[in-house]
Amino acid sequence: MDINSFCLDRIIRNALQEDLGQGDVTTDSIFDSGQKACGHFIVREEGVIAGITVAARVFGLLDDRVVLFPRVQDGERVGKGQIVAKVEGPAVSILKGERTALNFVQRMSGIATKTRKCVDMVKEYKVRIVDTRKTVPGLRVLDKYSVMAGGGHNHRFNLCDGVLIKDNHIRAAGSITRAVKSAREKVSHTLKIEVEVENLEQLSEALEAGADIILLDNMTLEDMRKSVEITGGRALLEASGNITQDRLTQIAATGVDLISMGSLTHSVKSLDISLKFE
Amino acid sequence: MDINSFCLDRIIRNALQEDLGQGDVTTDSIFDSGQKACGHFIVREEGVIAGITVAARVFGLLDDRVVLFPRVQDGERVGKGQIVAKVEGPAVSILKGERTALNFVQRMSGIATKTRKCVDMVKEYKVRIVDTRKTVPGLRVLDKYSVMAGGGHNHRFNLCDGVLIKDNHIRAAGSITRAVKSAREKVSHTLKIEVEVENLEQLSEALEAGADIILLDNMTLEDMRKSVEITGGRALLEASGNITQDRLTQIAATGVDLISMGSLTHSVKSLDISLKFE
Amino acid sequence: MDINSFCLDRIIRNALQEDLGQGDVTTDSIFDSGQKACGHFIVREEGVIAGITVAARVFGLLDDRVVLFPRVQDGERVGKGQIVAKVEGPAVSILKGERTALNFVQRMSGIATKTRKCVDMVKEYKVRIVDTRKTVPGLRVLDKYSVMAGGGHNHRFNLCDGVLIKDNHIRAAGSITRAVKSAREKVSHTLKIEVEVENLEQLSEALEAGADIILLDNMTLEDMRKSVEITGGRALLEASGNITQDRLTQIAATGVDLISMGSLTHSVKSLDISLKFE
Amino acid sequence: MDINSFCLDRIIRNALQEDLGQGDVTTDSIFDSGQKACGHFIVREEGVIAGITVAARVFGLLDDRVVLFPRVQDGERVGKGQIVAKVEGPAVSILKGERTALNFVQRMSGIATKTRKCVDMVKEYKVRIVDTRKTVPGLRVLDKYSVMAGGGHNHRFNLCDGVLIKDNHIRAAGSITRAVKSAREKVSHTLKIEVEVENLEQLSEALEAGADIILLDNMTLEDMRKSVEITGGRALLEASGNITQDRLTQIAATGVDLISMGSLTHSVKSLDISLKFE
Amino acid sequence: MDINSFCLDRIIRNALQEDLGQGDVTTDSIFDSGQKACGHFIVREEGVIAGITVAARVFGLLDDRVVLFPRVQDGERVGKGQIVAKVEGPAVSILKGERTALNFVQRMSGIATKTRKCVDMVKEYKVRIVDTRKTVPGLRVLDKYSVMAGGGHNHRFNLCDGVLIKDNHIRAAGSITRAVKSAREKVSHTLKIEVEVENLEQLSEALEAGADIILLDNMTLEDMRKSVEITGGRALLEASGNITQDRLTQIAATGVDLISMGSLTHSVKSLDISLKFE
Amino acid sequence: MDINSFCLDRIIRNALQEDLGQGDVTTDSIFDSGQKACGHFIVREEGVIAGITVAARVFGLLDDRVVLFPRVQDGERVGKGQIVAKVEGPAVSILKGERTALNFVQRMSGIATKTRKCVDMVKEYKVRIVDTRKTVPGLRVLDKYSVMAGGGHNHRFNLCDGVLIKDNHIRAAGSITRAVKSAREKVSHTLKIEVEVENLEQLSEALEAGADIILLDNMTLEDMRKSVEITGGRALLEASGNITQDRLTQIAATGVDLISMGSLTHSVKSLDISLKFE
Repeated sequence: MDINSFCLDRIIRNALQEDLGQGDVTTDSIFDSGQKACGHFIVREEGVIAGITVAARVFGLLDDRVVLFPRVQDGERVGKGQIVAKVEGPAVSILKGERTALNFVQRMSGIATKTRKCVDMVKEYKVRIVDTRKTVPGLRVLDKYSVMAGGGHNHRFNLCDGVLIKDNHIRAAGSITRAVKSAREKVSHTLKIEVEVENLEQLSEALEAGADIILLDNMTLEDMRKSVEITGGRALLEASGNITQDRLTQIAATGVDLISMGSLTHSVKSLDISLKFE
Repeated sequence: MDINSFCLDRIIRNALQEDLGQGDVTTDSIFDSGQKACGHFIVREEGVIAGITVAARVFGLLDDRVVLFPRVQDGERVGKGQIVAKVEGPAVSILKGERTALNFVQRMSGIATKTRKCVDMVKEYKVRIVDTRKTVPGLRVLDKYSVMAGGGHNHRFNLCDGVLIKDNHIRAAGSITRAVKSAREKVSHTLKIEVEVENLEQLSEALEAGADIILLDNMTLEDMRKSVEITGGRALLEASGNITQDRLTQIAATGVDLISMGSLTHSVKSLDISLKFE
Repeated sequence: MDINSFCLDRIIRNALQEDLGQGDVTTDSIFDSGQKACGHFIVREEGVIAGITVAARVFGLLDDRVVLFPRVQDGERVGKGQIVAKVEGPAVSILKGERTALNFVQRMSGIATKTRKCVDMVKEYKVRIVDTRKTVPGLRVLDKYSVMAGGGHNHRFNLCDGVLIKDNHIRAAGSITRAVKSAREKVSHTLKIEVEVENLEQLSEALEAGADIILLDNMTLEDMRKSVEITGGRALLEASGNITQDRLTQIAATGVDLISMGSLTHSVKSLDISLKFE
Repeated sequence: MDINSFCLDRIIRNALQEDLGQGDVTTDSIFDSGQKACGHFIVREEGVIAGITVAARVFGLLDDRVVLFPRVQDGERVGKGQIVAKVEGPAVSILKGERTALNFVQRMSGIATKTRKCVDMVKEYKVRIVDTRKTVPGLRVLDKYSVMAGGGHNHRFNLCDGVLIKDNHIRAAGSITRAVKSAREKVSHTLKIEVEVENLEQLSEALEAGADIILLDNMTLEDMRKSVEITGGRALLEASGNITQDRLTQIAATGVDLISMGSLTHSVKSLDISLKFE
Repeated sequence: MDINSFCLDRIIRNALQEDLGQGDVTTDSIFDSGQKACGHFIVREEGVIAGITVAARVFGLLDDRVVLFPRVQDGERVGKGQIVAKVEGPAVSILKGERTALNFVQRMSGIATKTRKCVDMVKEYKVRIVDTRKTVPGLRVLDKYSVMAGGGHNHRFNLCDGVLIKDNHIRAAGSITRAVKSAREKVSHTLKIEVEVENLEQLSEALEAGADIILLDNMTLEDMRKSVEITGGRALLEASGNITQDRLTQIAATGVDLISMGSLTHSVKSLDISLKFE
Repeated sequence: MDINSFCLDRIIRNALQEDLGQGDVTTDSIFDSGQKACGHFIVREEGVIAGITVAARVFGLLDDRVVLFPRVQDGERVGKGQIVAKVEGPAVSILKGERTALNFVQRMSGIATKTRKCVDMVKEYKVRIVDTRKTVPGLRVLDKYSVMAGGGHNHRFNLCDGVLIKDNHIRAAGSITRAVKSAREKVSHTLKIEVEVENLEQLSEALEAGADIILLDNMTLEDMRKSVEITGGRALLEASGNITQDRLTQIAATGVDLISMGSLTHSVKSLDISLKFE
């Protein structure tokens, strides 16, 4: 999936403006603006890279004379000390864009690295590891891209491109059945309807109501297994809530279709990457 | 420090637009728009709160009939199960703003919690724990606010409000002395000049050149101690590079004035908070 | 469905700026700014109203002392000469907002009126009349809202909230089967997959591939009927291409689930409405 | 008249963002991003083209590797089946921009076609067919450009670049004479003053007051003829209100200088154009 | 003339953002946010006030609890030491908005003061003192408002609301006659056509061609007088080029209709005003 | 110091939009869009140039086929009649950008010229002539750049990149000592603390409190001299308030480090420059 350049450029311009303010007083007062430089982005620990094209665009928007040559592609595994990109151009522009480029690529690679680890743990199962809407405000398009770069898949992007009926909606409608009916009547036929359930009884009602996807909220492994059995392929089943890496394989083994993990994007350890000048 | 409402509103509008798209199809198809609701923000683990006013503003910008009543103030320590805010208003608007409000306050509280922990570890020393520019693109003002809420202090905000002469600048200028001279001649007299040094020799040159702040990059504890001695209060000393929580107290004990930690903002574990409807 | 106020306000501000430029030279040079006025929005022909809340917001954003009192709700049928809203406030502000408010409500009501007519023609069938992406650039959210106000339903909003595999995609993938497979593997599990087919053979392949929705492009009534039979409820069927009002009932009678009509929004006759001052 | 590129680019970016959202999920999941394509824009009915340069810019802003080669110029008459432009470039980008480009060019050509028809009907008279402010919110610059492409002329663009004294202004001022006097004293000497009149008595007063242009609101043909006589070239006369194509020639024959038609832009039938890939 | 609030608010927000950056570090670190304050805007020299409502809006946009009470109206003459407005509200907000409010009102009053002086010098003549497009980029709407506050009048606002045929246009068209003809055929009938001439011969040609306004560029007083005679009211005459205050009365005495002065807005001495806290 | 291209482009686009509106009706109706032109920017009086690169960017953003060749660099002295730049490209684009380009470069050169004059007057002293925040709203980055081009230096850019404790802050805190203490505890260690004092007693307290910079507000020459003596290099001293060109040399002779002048930017006489076509 490509990152839409309209979104991306707006995000990057915003970030550069934030870091540059009126200008880089240090660099402008010391460097001759004609001086050229060349640097390498080096990874300081094992991981999965994401955001190389974002870094390239940071420099491109700042000064189109700066060129970044990627040495790996988003989604590739990299080792400690590996060069992931080379950057060349006016020294002042590379220095001005350095921190912003790194802030993007380090966070994105952190997400991809964590996702990859989870995806690998369940690779013997047909299950998908999916993200949530627990992303950093303003950067969702990048957070979700990074999950894909790590081998994960995306859940709905936002509140308008998928129906997810939760506890509160059910109470307001009176029952799962009514909530599903109400949604189906009004929303576009192109949207799938997902229902969050807490027990097997609710699961049965949701299936009966014709839910396309059912979110099993904080269920025990045993109940997940039963849910898979009861459902028999009539709907996609998503395990959610309190998913730790420890339980990942066990959950996958229950036969659910999807495991959604908020921590992929809400608690990110950035990958250690630095820019080393020649 | 107040968060400037011009920055804040722009950030929040952007985040709400991202999560709402054309609208919340689930809520709009099920709820009666006149229905009222009331909910509590509950913390699920120990920590320090930051961003309560941001959460309030999320709802305020979405629908000014929603009111959030804070029960704690930014910077307060909270315990597991504690209610930190109550929210009242049209149910549809609370549901639409819930995820965005939580995404802000969970990240911000995550930063405050981590910072508080570090600050507490060195509280017997005069040292300040300070942040860096390793923040999430577009949210620096919130990241840095959260560091302060956790008892930390801020380093320069961006490239234009402080001079920081690094390795590359020194090489371009020819020497620390020349780099400092060049900066001092051109930049505003209101800006302090900081120099990054790697050894005691460079430290001496930086002091001689009249640096206001000196960054001790990846120095041993022994060299930090010597730096403090050599400097004798002529400049502020900042320990930086590879600062882990383990070494924090030892570094503080060397007598440096500042310890800067990128991990406060680049690797955040969000604090577990949820919105529970009555 | 509510129109998201973030989208709406941006659209309205843009429209007001376009019509006001630096200001209304006529009104400002003649009117005393303190003068009050009261006017009625009167419909000059039969139709269905949409956009009353948009008109209200036009005045609200221009001058919050202007209040618009709707006499009907969006989606209501109205007759010639009927008053649909009353507006009160400073005369200068009502005059400045008049044209912009009318431009919105006349177009929106034109869409609702046309849609209602089509929906009524097929009301004895279970079929939905749905819109397309053939909307006026920048106003899609209003165009689609108006279709709903007229009793129609919405198709996907844009290119990211639904998969629609067309001729070109099929050729690029090699076959319908491969195109569907490729999409299913990569896109979010929350998105439905629609395939455009031109004949019954393609229909069968699409069903086999597991398409959720199948668009029958320019098919004869006979082929539509056969498609309904072959499909047997395994997918939603959408009749599309060259849908005129004349054939609407016949198409509905074939048993398809959806009829999509670009003309609902690409060729709109605005409803005649004017603002009459007391 | 050129369309100002600042306005145009903002309008197009807005439209592309609206249609793309986070990206084209179908195309991105099926196409190889390196694949090239070539297509032709073909007109499916007779008409007049407008907006070819807008379509070119849609692709240019989306991906500067896409090139559109116009085969006709804005304002040219085209026949059924005629190719109006060729487009070449990366297949993914052409597919992503297709609908947006067509939405612009189909509406604009629809306006030009209708205008051309009206202009041709009165070509034996010196009269100008002019547009109004009844345009689609946000696209006035394109609507008015299309009227010119169809051989029509523009009325004032918005409320600040021409004085138009209507009924309400006259009542507020006390008389036409006073309204004109008040406007002339305050507004820039560069602006013409137009007065809307409903009968010959008002016409005389407006002439006396020195109006530059007089709008004859819903007058009979007989009164229009008398107005022309009375005026004797002292002011421009504009016929307005309920102008149907049937009466067009008769109105032109009265000798008025201008006929303004809201329907040119408020009720547009889009011209049928499609993009056919090779 | 009212300043359009859409333009005004955008200008003010931009100015406040520029001056506030992330916030007022001094005020926020010293003041208790609950503290109230009251201050007076005092004029330190004689002049004419303009921009009081702009100052009010600066505070209103910054913090709606701050209220500004004007003691004079825009356009009023004020004396040294006179209080022109009182401001009350949270001390932190008044301090944060002070400089921005003053920057607006001091420049605007400077323009009004200079304009008033020129207008008074020619008050015995029917001539209008008018401004030009030589305004500060981004603030034209305020610059031109201030000219009116000082008793002057506005020339065209920008390149699209008036035709001004200069030397280059004449050369490109071949002659004044052709340039006027070309413009008249293509531009809206609502726009006046002005021609810049350098001698009496050109004046005659412009009159013949039917120019509505004629700009007498750098003419001698004698030639201006002759121009008035030759023209005999058939067009408005505008004296322009190198207009100093010394020659103002003499130029007015020639009988020209307009005197345009770029210096009203391109060379402004700000009026000395300060905010004094109680 | 480079002007940050993100700020610059936003300012220029804004200015061009302001002057172009929907387009240049005169030029578009007369010129053939293919015609080329060449012109020279000629200075009509002695001065110092600033803003040549801004002018170049005005044309570049309007039409990238227009190229401006500078003949001098920002900061250079120029004489009457000197050509400072040549511009080549499509005639229509040069004419459309002419006024905007001149508005920028004339104001900027006016500031540089005035600053140069002041700087030259005190060149025998070590003192810096510095600007203030009394700049034109929205153009501070250009105003301050122009001061540097004239040989001056910049004071703090805005409220967030330097602490300046004034009268009101002192009163709110209780004393200078407390105000400084409060600021130092809360603000970043990277910011200098400046205190405004009115007499020698306050000066002593400020020095004692550890102020980095002390602003001597409206002091007599005698008191300035004493201040220099008392301070003995412990802080930078800034003379401010009512600084006229007459007193400049005398103030410099007192030994203060900085003289800040609001008039450099709040009362600017634009440099006379015009564009002459070949």
